[in-house]
Amino acid sequence: MTKYKIKIEFDGTDFVGWQRQKDAISVQEAIENAIFRFCAEKVEVTSSGRTDAGVHAIEQVAHFVIQKETNAKTVANALNFYLVGQKIAILDCEKADDDFHARYHATQRQYLYIINNRQAPLALNQTRAWHVKTELNVEKMQEAAEFFLGTHDFSSFRAALCQSKSPVKTIDSISVRKLDSQEIHIEIAAQSFLHHMVRNIVGTLKMVGDGSLEPAEIQKIFEAKDRNFAGPTAKAHGLYFKKVLY
Amino acid sequence: MTKYKIKIEFDGTDFVGWQRQKDAISVQEAIENAIFRFCAEKVEVTSSGRTDAGVHAIEQVAHFVIQKETNAKTVANALNFYLVGQKIAILDCEKADDDFHARYHATQRQYLYIINNRQAPLALNQTRAWHVKTELNVEKMQEAAEFFLGTHDFSSFRAALCQSKSPVKTIDSISVRKLDSQEIHIEIAAQSFLHHMVRNIVGTLKMVGDGSLEPAEIQKIFEAKDRNFAGPTAKAHGLYFKKVLY
Repeated sequence: MTKYKIKIEFDGTDFVGWQRQKDAISVQEAIENAIFRFCAEKVEVTSSGRTDAGVHAIEQVAHFVIQKETNAKTVANALNFYLVGQKIAILDCEKADDDFHARYHATQRQYLYIINNRQAPLALNQTRAWHVKTELNVEKMQEAAEFFLGTHDFSSFRAALCQSKSPVKTIDSISVRKLDSQEIHIEIAAQSFLHHMVRNIVGTLKMVGDGSLEPAEIQKIFEAKDRNFAGPTAKAHGLYFKKVLY
Repeated sequence: MTKYKIKIEFDGTDFVGWQRQKDAISVQEAIENAIFRFCAEKVEVTSSGRTDAGVHAIEQVAHFVIQKETNAKTVANALNFYLVGQKIAILDCEKADDDFHARYHATQRQYLYIINNRQAPLALNQTRAWHVKTELNVEKMQEAAEFFLGTHDFSSFRAALCQSKSPVKTIDSISVRKLDSQEIHIEIAAQSFLHHMVRNIVGTLKMVGDGSLEPAEIQKIFEAKDRNFAGPTAKAHGLYFKKVLY
């Protein structure tokens, strides 16, 4: 019986998200199916956290346990073989300590959000960025981003269905930068996030960017502790799970 | 009767290439259909050149003539409206002089080729880069690239079906650079290219990168004037038509 830790890249477009669902294919199910085809074992693959339908991963981490006597390189090659055509790639596989837990042991999760800020519709990056036509003021967005740093009650940025016990979270870092004439990259890191928290922060920063909110109003939104005060949830397909630290 | 010049971005994955074909949808046909839906006129859209199935465009240019009294902004908006869901975007539209010709008046065409040089399969960029597992020596590729600069007989880098009268072409610039830990970008500019010429140059540079060819052997390949001496045609989905100058 060996525990393996895998690093995963995926394009979330064709999946209902990370978690297994009844009626459609999830990333978790696709990987579990690949493991089954490799060793005929039905196992559960546990990632550092769920991601929504359409959300991509540059490097998600997950673990699972199999009985089969094999090695990490063989596991990686076999899973990639059985995942062909599914836009999921196993970037790396290694044996993990028996007590390693992809979710509970994570010390930081990093997200990247891409906004494409141009007039014309998106062709090449249609499923890879949030298309915002209104010209955004990146300096104001950066100014507003500062308000999210540190420990806060994120009730105003939390999905109604969020199951987290506490709304208090700590943002380790957040940055907004203009990459070129059209792309704006927002990066956010924290040990953990509430449901939809990154997308709700981005939706609010977008409102600052288009002038509907002043940066200083972020403070008031925190104080309201009411989801209705923050901006709309940004599109899932602009979000990338970038990295997780242990 | 007005001539319009449009700039086009497209994801080539779902198209049989630029040119109209009988059995499957091309970029040209998709745009001509959109024009028809806009003004009920059957017109031909002429681009700066054909691109193969799977090849993408960051900024292709084309022209067409319609009778309808309208303006450039309305044309752009209407075409984008009728192209929704097709991964083709009209980036810009302007009235062109009556004698403007997207193909004949082009003074330089610029291509970008993306190689993803990593072990793991591609998930996010499966249709957006050529996946090469063998570690490539970028310095050697740069050295080899120098041999392509200037005017040469490109018979060894020309597809069998190429219809160009002369095999002599002039490369204005060519560069190979490592973008990050996995992506290698090759950029090539010339007034015009032979059929498959960019992909055949890239396929040959890849052989230099993996050690099957020495940079100096490029000279011998030119002298052979025989397609069999050069490398294989690089995958279409790593190629981007980047820009055209007039």
